[in-house]
Amino acid sequence: MAVYTDISEDELQRFLARYDLGRLLSYKGIAEGVENSNFSLHLDTGPAFLTLFEKRVDANDLPFFVGLMSHLASRGINCPQPVARRDGEVIGELAGRPAIIVTFLEGMWPRRPTANHCRQVGEALARLHLAGEDFPLTRRNALTVGDWRPLFERASDRADTVEPGLKAEIEGDLAVLERDWPAGLPLGVIHADLFPDNVFFLGDELSGLIDFYFACTDILVYDVAICINAWCFERDFSFNLTKGIALLEGYQSVRPLSADEQSALPLLARGAALRFLLTRLYDWLNTPDGAVVTKKDPREYLRRLRFHRQIASAAEYGCTPA
Amino acid sequence: MAVYTDISEDELQRFLARYDLGRLLSYKGIAEGVENSNFSLHLDTGPAFLTLFEKRVDANDLPFFVGLMSHLASRGINCPQPVARRDGEVIGELAGRPAIIVTFLEGMWPRRPTANHCRQVGEALARLHLAGEDFPLTRRNALTVGDWRPLFERASDRADTVEPGLKAEIEGDLAVLERDWPAGLPLGVIHADLFPDNVFFLGDELSGLIDFYFACTDILVYDVAICINAWCFERDFSFNLTKGIALLEGYQSVRPLSADEQSALPLLARGAALRFLLTRLYDWLNTPDGAVVTKKDPREYLRRLRFHRQIASAAEYGCTPA
Repeated sequence: MAVYTDISEDELQRFLARYDLGRLLSYKGIAEGVENSNFSLHLDTGPAFLTLFEKRVDANDLPFFVGLMSHLASRGINCPQPVARRDGEVIGELAGRPAIIVTFLEGMWPRRPTANHCRQVGEALARLHLAGEDFPLTRRNALTVGDWRPLFERASDRADTVEPGLKAEIEGDLAVLERDWPAGLPLGVIHADLFPDNVFFLGDELSGLIDFYFACTDILVYDVAICINAWCFERDFSFNLTKGIALLEGYQSVRPLSADEQSALPLLARGAALRFLLTRLYDWLNTPDGAVVTKKDPREYLRRLRFHRQIASAAEYGCTPA
Repeated sequence: MAVYTDISEDELQRFLARYDLGRLLSYKGIAEGVENSNFSLHLDTGPAFLTLFEKRVDANDLPFFVGLMSHLASRGINCPQPVARRDGEVIGELAGRPAIIVTFLEGMWPRRPTANHCRQVGEALARLHLAGEDFPLTRRNALTVGDWRPLFERASDRADTVEPGLKAEIEGDLAVLERDWPAGLPLGVIHADLFPDNVFFLGDELSGLIDFYFACTDILVYDVAICINAWCFERDFSFNLTKGIALLEGYQSVRPLSADEQSALPLLARGAALRFLLTRLYDWLNTPDGAVVTKKDPREYLRRLRFHRQIASAAEYGCTPA
């Protein structure tokens, strides 16, 4: 949870003056999101959502992110839609930071995901992949296999303070993943961070996807591997096969996975676990204790990583063979 | 800024089932308020505001707080109005904490108060005092003169780590305030925490008062003294006489201060500065570094305290003599 930047009404009013959104009635900082500062706005035209991009986001990536959200929305994906100013621009500046307004998406993210949630997330992810097919921009995944070793090197010295033996264990996985990372699988737009707090539901129905600020161009089924990590493990770190089946059936009901994609899934899931282990490890070791963010325990992803190492085929995740 | 308690949709839905508020569309934790956990709710009947009372608030005080907000709203004061459940109760329980829903108050609090803001706050404070006259409940101020010494004793050992000589300086003020604290001035309901972040404006007009969780029965003009501290000093700690005049003219246009109230004002303002100095000092010394709250510098109130010590009459704050 975080609001890194507070804003005054004066600067917000000046920012809003370039939009056709009517009168500002209130704005409140939202205690969610760890990368950016988010505000819920009430305007007399209705609610809206304001995001200020903090320095971890590269301003050069913003046209990709906002273009993607507009593109996906135009293809029927329920996601926040960037609101254009009267001059046609969608990216402005507020409090010295790039800032955008998007439509307010109603819905609640599931604190305790069920198999029903997993099935719908699988379907929505596949629809997102199809809707992204004709999106013209590309963005390199800044956190894919080749980026993990440099990240690890900035944390490896102190890795064993988090768990004895962690440094050697990660080195073993890194070597395998770098050697065996698949080439030739279908690429496209992936969300790359579709965790439960980025998926909204109204009642039992998925109502939208948010937070496209890790989205990039990468192996489509890697996005499935991320979702398996994010949605199909219990709080005791055990894999829930029912949820795996639901997520993969949901996905394949819209976009069936090829035999090649399926056979790559265990290694991709292992890579996804390592990716989140590494960023969490880095943050764990480098976030000052006084910071206004909740540090996430990297060991949750170590447990997942160890699980994926033992998996021989996608069927063990609940995947119906191609 | 703080949300101490996250809540799941399930428990929120169970809580809301006892109200006639329609379907829940979204809820978001608000990064404001340092005592409680606050959520902005969107319901198909409109927006609402949910507060969970954390342990610093005594549950026995809640009937006073919610009764007061209902009373003031019925007397035309624009403040959050507690929403009753179908069974007539206004205080429920959520996530193991007492919880209430209040109407959502639109408006923005001024990050940079002007004399116009000060005048309207003065008027609103006086109206609040008049509207509270026939409120039947009372609540002892838990942070008045007799409570300061016990609070100070829990922080005095380390006071000089914040500023050398602070312990002796506070002891001097405490002795004077305990000896000279006035008796016999008009009592009534006071807000006791009417800082800029608790006063909303829409455009140039005051649109409402919030956060009645320090409200109590005490000397009315002490509330004016608190507002002088909260509204009339600049960021360089200098007193702004124009703002003092505006605040006091605003107040007296609705409720003129008697000669006795005016002559007590310098001592009460000094007491108010000490009250905020002491709670900030205590929090400064006792808030763990990892806590998700912004610690407020106690020295801001030491500067005010020193200023008030030099004041001989209410006229120096800009008060028109009675």
